[in-house]
Amino acid sequence: MSLPRIAVDAMGGDEGVRVMIEGAALARRDHDSFKFLLVGDSARIEAALDNHPNLRAASEILHCDDVVGGEELPSKAIRRAKTTSMGLAVNAVKTGDAGAAVSAGNTGALMAMSKLALRTMPGIDRPALAAIMPTLKAHDVVMLDLGANTEADARNLVQYAVMGAAYSRIVNGFDKPVVRLLNIGTEEIKGTEELRDAAAMLTAASAGGNVALQFDGFVESDKINRGETHVVVTDGFSGNIALKAIEGSARFVTDLLRQAFTSSLRSKIGFLVSRPATELLKHHLDPNNHNGAVFLGLNGVVVKSHGSANAKGVAHAVAVTARLLENKLTQRIAEDLALLGEETLGKKGRSIAPKGDEAPA
Amino acid sequence: MSLPRIAVDAMGGDEGVRVMIEGAALARRDHDSFKFLLVGDSARIEAALDNHPNLRAASEILHCDDVVGGEELPSKAIRRAKTTSMGLAVNAVKTGDAGAAVSAGNTGALMAMSKLALRTMPGIDRPALAAIMPTLKAHDVVMLDLGANTEADARNLVQYAVMGAAYSRIVNGFDKPVVRLLNIGTEEIKGTEELRDAAAMLTAASAGGNVALQFDGFVESDKINRGETHVVVTDGFSGNIALKAIEGSARFVTDLLRQAFTSSLRSKIGFLVSRPATELLKHHLDPNNHNGAVFLGLNGVVVKSHGSANAKGVAHAVAVTARLLENKLTQRIAEDLALLGEETLGKKGRSIAPKGDEAPA
Repeated sequence: MSLPRIAVDAMGGDEGVRVMIEGAALARRDHDSFKFLLVGDSARIEAALDNHPNLRAASEILHCDDVVGGEELPSKAIRRAKTTSMGLAVNAVKTGDAGAAVSAGNTGALMAMSKLALRTMPGIDRPALAAIMPTLKAHDVVMLDLGANTEADARNLVQYAVMGAAYSRIVNGFDKPVVRLLNIGTEEIKGTEELRDAAAMLTAASAGGNVALQFDGFVESDKINRGETHVVVTDGFSGNIALKAIEGSARFVTDLLRQAFTSSLRSKIGFLVSRPATELLKHHLDPNNHNGAVFLGLNGVVVKSHGSANAKGVAHAVAVTARLLENKLTQRIAEDLALLGEETLGKKGRSIAPKGDEAPA
Repeated sequence: MSLPRIAVDAMGGDEGVRVMIEGAALARRDHDSFKFLLVGDSARIEAALDNHPNLRAASEILHCDDVVGGEELPSKAIRRAKTTSMGLAVNAVKTGDAGAAVSAGNTGALMAMSKLALRTMPGIDRPALAAIMPTLKAHDVVMLDLGANTEADARNLVQYAVMGAAYSRIVNGFDKPVVRLLNIGTEEIKGTEELRDAAAMLTAASAGGNVALQFDGFVESDKINRGETHVVVTDGFSGNIALKAIEGSARFVTDLLRQAFTSSLRSKIGFLVSRPATELLKHHLDPNNHNGAVFLGLNGVVVKSHGSANAKGVAHAVAVTARLLENKLTQRIAEDLALLGEETLGKKGRSIAPKGDEAPA
């Protein structure tokens, strides 16, 4: 069976059409089975396709004039779901016209539109935004939620763990990814009640042995990039704080490094000599090599490409999207939820199952 | 008037007595007015003092046998406030036997003992833990709370802002430090209700013009180290997550850099040539140059030295402590709170003052 096509919001992102089309073309060059629905201003898309005949041959264009603004409030943007490139790309997933959607537009609007059009999948109370980040080891770490919901209760966190593990299995190929909850200490008594309850639920489920993840307690935010944890689970507020702190700190250090290397002639020479080393570092840290945050927990795959991603970054996001489609992300999550069992998860709005009510070990 | 002496918990920290005494001696070398009360095992302190006659001349030893364990629960540790080096150092501040205390021991226990012995100062509902971090600019940034309290309401956040600004004025010399609330976006609608309420209260107070800070809205965690914000205010959970994420990410990048520089002969040569540049970077990022987290909002100054700090780090923490004493930190906070006015702060347990009830502009 061939891969369903990918709807690309051609208008989103800092540089719009050109980068999105170049990115799609780049992804298509590596994977000639990819097919696309390119959504946006047809004249501009056509112009951008002039340099990419192979992409043109694999694409259909869906024209629209309207675009969601980068600073637009989600509540305002969703009113134009039927007329904007973002709304139409997401809608194509709903109607089955495409298998997944990629957009580099306004994150809040994309989330709102995706939730409205695709709805949250059965067994999931709230979707989450997940991203991958580099580690000291060969594999990436998955972190979620990064801001789809400001707060999360224990039940949400357990569902995030299942969704994040499914994502990690697909992108990193682990059988049972090591999942930890982000906390301000690793002792059992640390953090909020929600975290402690979620830890108890995940410990019980993990002890059962038939879940597709390995829960290993809490992790502190200084260990996220060490590579020992495969999935870091947290509420959207803390996840957003941690992600941006990591990005900002990495940029801070590389900015200092640049300042240091240009501070004297000797340093400049040293920099030239060690360029292969610093290029290696640059490659490892380049956010374009990790681009593509995924909305997990919806009836369909929607991927957010970073607004400032270049063509290589967009190509990465498109390749991630295809991989999630190929590996049937949504179906995997549904299966893993079933393994977990409703007993472990507890009833909605109640944060922990009563004693003696756990899933059989 | 001479500076009150500083009580040093000589037993805390990963390396204990030797590092604490060396650190105090180092601080004393730079500031010959410093006097000390060294608390702990007198035989071991005496032995460590053999190399530091100047410190010995400026110190009194308070002997005790008991030590708070690094992993000990705060609730257990406080029962031994009267017998442990940490407890006795803090108690010396309470009795006036010392002006301030420095410990490298268990943070939770130090916080619990300090709260119990010194009590929260009038006008402050909850104390906070504040630290300084390097930025791209010449000055450091103050961030609080880093985990004294897991949660914070709007009123707590406003009080943190006042305390952090007083701290920033003393360590960085700003007249009206730029204060921002840590959030997951800079738009007014972002984040939690507590953050939005605190922002409204600080905006009103800042507009009044007679407060000792300049409130400038929200800051995202990727901007903490840019140097444009002087004080970053947040709840203890998010602050701890952000601080450790920044530390971990900086270590991640420098680890990658080390790997890259040792990956080939050429890179190794380049590293040797550029050593002055990388040493500059190392110095700027060395946590010992920023060591000393302060418990703000107590009737007395207590400084936490990092458990893994070296002698230079301890000396920095001691120097910070002396500076806070010299500049009468507690008194400054009390004065700034009075400027803010109880109207702005709202009643306890109510998160925002009713309209028309703000402090006069």
